[in-house]
Amino acid sequence: MSWIDNVLSMVRKRRPLVHNITNLVVMNTTANALLALGASPIMSHSVEDLEDLVPMADAIVINIGTLDEYFTYSMLKAIQLAKEYRKPVVLDPVGAGATKLRTRAALMLLNSGGVRVARGNFGEMSALAGVYGRTKGVEAAVYESDKAAGLALEVASKYSIIAGVTGPVDYVSDGRRVFSVELKKNSQSLEQVIGRVTGLGCMVSAIIGAFLAVEEPLKACIAGIAVFKAASFYAAEESPYPGSFHVKLYDWLYRIDCEDMRSVVKVGSVEPQGEA
Amino acid sequence: MSWIDNVLSMVRKRRPLVHNITNLVVMNTTANALLALGASPIMSHSVEDLEDLVPMADAIVINIGTLDEYFTYSMLKAIQLAKEYRKPVVLDPVGAGATKLRTRAALMLLNSGGVRVARGNFGEMSALAGVYGRTKGVEAAVYESDKAAGLALEVASKYSIIAGVTGPVDYVSDGRRVFSVELKKNSQSLEQVIGRVTGLGCMVSAIIGAFLAVEEPLKACIAGIAVFKAASFYAAEESPYPGSFHVKLYDWLYRIDCEDMRSVVKVGSVEPQGEA
Amino acid sequence: MSWIDNVLSMVRKRRPLVHNITNLVVMNTTANALLALGASPIMSHSVEDLEDLVPMADAIVINIGTLDEYFTYSMLKAIQLAKEYRKPVVLDPVGAGATKLRTRAALMLLNSGGVRVARGNFGEMSALAGVYGRTKGVEAAVYESDKAAGLALEVASKYSIIAGVTGPVDYVSDGRRVFSVELKKNSQSLEQVIGRVTGLGCMVSAIIGAFLAVEEPLKACIAGIAVFKAASFYAAEESPYPGSFHVKLYDWLYRIDCEDMRSVVKVGSVEPQGEA
Repeated sequence: MSWIDNVLSMVRKRRPLVHNITNLVVMNTTANALLALGASPIMSHSVEDLEDLVPMADAIVINIGTLDEYFTYSMLKAIQLAKEYRKPVVLDPVGAGATKLRTRAALMLLNSGGVRVARGNFGEMSALAGVYGRTKGVEAAVYESDKAAGLALEVASKYSIIAGVTGPVDYVSDGRRVFSVELKKNSQSLEQVIGRVTGLGCMVSAIIGAFLAVEEPLKACIAGIAVFKAASFYAAEESPYPGSFHVKLYDWLYRIDCEDMRSVVKVGSVEPQGEA
Repeated sequence: MSWIDNVLSMVRKRRPLVHNITNLVVMNTTANALLALGASPIMSHSVEDLEDLVPMADAIVINIGTLDEYFTYSMLKAIQLAKEYRKPVVLDPVGAGATKLRTRAALMLLNSGGVRVARGNFGEMSALAGVYGRTKGVEAAVYESDKAAGLALEVASKYSIIAGVTGPVDYVSDGRRVFSVELKKNSQSLEQVIGRVTGLGCMVSAIIGAFLAVEEPLKACIAGIAVFKAASFYAAEESPYPGSFHVKLYDWLYRIDCEDMRSVVKVGSVEPQGEA
Repeated sequence: MSWIDNVLSMVRKRRPLVHNITNLVVMNTTANALLALGASPIMSHSVEDLEDLVPMADAIVINIGTLDEYFTYSMLKAIQLAKEYRKPVVLDPVGAGATKLRTRAALMLLNSGGVRVARGNFGEMSALAGVYGRTKGVEAAVYESDKAAGLALEVASKYSIIAGVTGPVDYVSDGRRVFSVELKKNSQSLEQVIGRVTGLGCMVSAIIGAFLAVEEPLKACIAGIAVFKAASFYAAEESPYPGSFHVKLYDWLYRIDCEDMRSVVKVGSVEPQGEA
């Protein structure tokens, strides 16, 4: 995992500018996660800002957690500019599969051709694969461990992107291979709190964005997921209750180093079983 | 108070989907309070989301803390759909009485006939009763203990809803009876911090929403207020300063059980004195 | 610094109503900072609210961190009403210099003639002075210590306002004199975390707003900056990691007294060197 160490060091050294068009719920917490990690976030949904921000940004994060016509238009426009200026884009399809609006928006943004990485939970990524009814609201309601690896592969292959399906074990695929990210040891504290704070998935996507600024998409996606998983492990060990865990998470995104990561997270290569 | 224990257990077991159309200030903190408690929040103001979300939701929370035409329309539409699909709605009339816009919006939403519970501070609920000038901004500026019970009764009776007036002692009425919720012992720490964190009232309303998903409105309103009061008591005992108190509050919404509640909160039946 | 003690006491006693039209990222944290300090915040961007809120408010905070046409119009209208009702306005030109939209919005609001104080980082204030290219995103990317005092003087003089340039050493000018605010001792903890939490500059501007409600603009600006600097010093001493530091910052805005301030912050009068 020395390459993850490298990616993390590069983010902390270069402090890449990560432009986020994200939902109203997590604007503050996503910015804080990126700052804690070492990146420079800017949150802006203004269409008029895009022509100045996209060329300046090192990566773009698009998150559809709260939508209206203005935000949707701004996201589409940002992706078009990102293509023009060759900036990497990560898409977080929050709530895809839960409502038609969100599913359609996610598909439209994906089909625009400018997205390099999509990361979501099992229900959301299922919707991108064309399988509905696995999403309840926006929290991760379901996770079928025997199908998650295949789902990552399918979404990656279908859209020619890197796809990350996050859950108890995370899977990342480039459409040919599938990699897993998981904890080396169980953490009851983490299991207890991980679903009890809003915007953690959004945080992972934003961190992937920061890594996209310094690394190619497959590695950026794996590294983003791995760093978040390790930081959340240590935060939960320090405090198994949601409010305190949430605070400690920023501390650990700041503190975490490769040694910490190596002790708790492993990245593996998997042969996907079953079909999504 | 074993029925409150029941309500709390049911929320934690069923994890009801609570759809919030709420203000920009508290979207994150309200979602976190609901998650800590054990419910599944979704925050969405998209009109296009409503036809999918309302039928799926177990309860709806409407909060007018920041308004524009789009949000107001979305709230009205959500209440209409909630009537159609028989979903319970709680209204938080933030800032009613402080500005005409807010007073009018609260009254329009109330008069739409789909609201089951309204909860506000003394000034806001006074505005619903037609008495103005008791609201200064959006924080609880006034509280007249001799009038609060009567005010709950009046608002409940006027709109045929359950009305909750929160303050040092909370009053809940169904238009015939009035119940009080109060601490068994004084907490100087709580008195010190309770007005120093934004969105605490909004949190109470959202928690009532979670309880509306599993209990009838009168009990849901009493239980929501009681659970919040007890959690805030313990959080303040742990940390009498606003930042740390705020963090501990989520911890305690997660941790609190009936034993904890029974030791610090009492629910009583009162004979209202005076007139609002 | 006994006059700062006075200003702080007055805010805590009178609890001035501070009306904020601010960005989506910091609405919650700004409200919490003002509440912790002792002021009464109201966050509202509704144009329809303005005619009721501005006359009632003791001060107005305008922050352009996230803009769309509606917010920009509301800000302009609020400043016009503030002039009419003689209410003090502080402007935070977030991201001025980074994008044309933000630079233009900041200049338009400044040129409307109703702004009493503008506070920003070195890059943002440079843009107000007509010097671009010093802003990278919205975080403080550059700070040229030999030019900061001259920059404060220049902006203050150009717009006939009080100008505050914040950074490692802060400078405040009324267009004739320049004052410095700085720590008496270095804090490695503070240097480590100060750039790792979003919205700290926005917090300073809002605190200046609270002080504008009880003191003339030059003193309000100096006091706001000094109180924030001292509170952040103590918060960082308690916790040198960004999540915990952020929480402690609210605790210290609540706790801080003149004794605390006097031990760590000094206000000086400077002879500006060089040109911005």
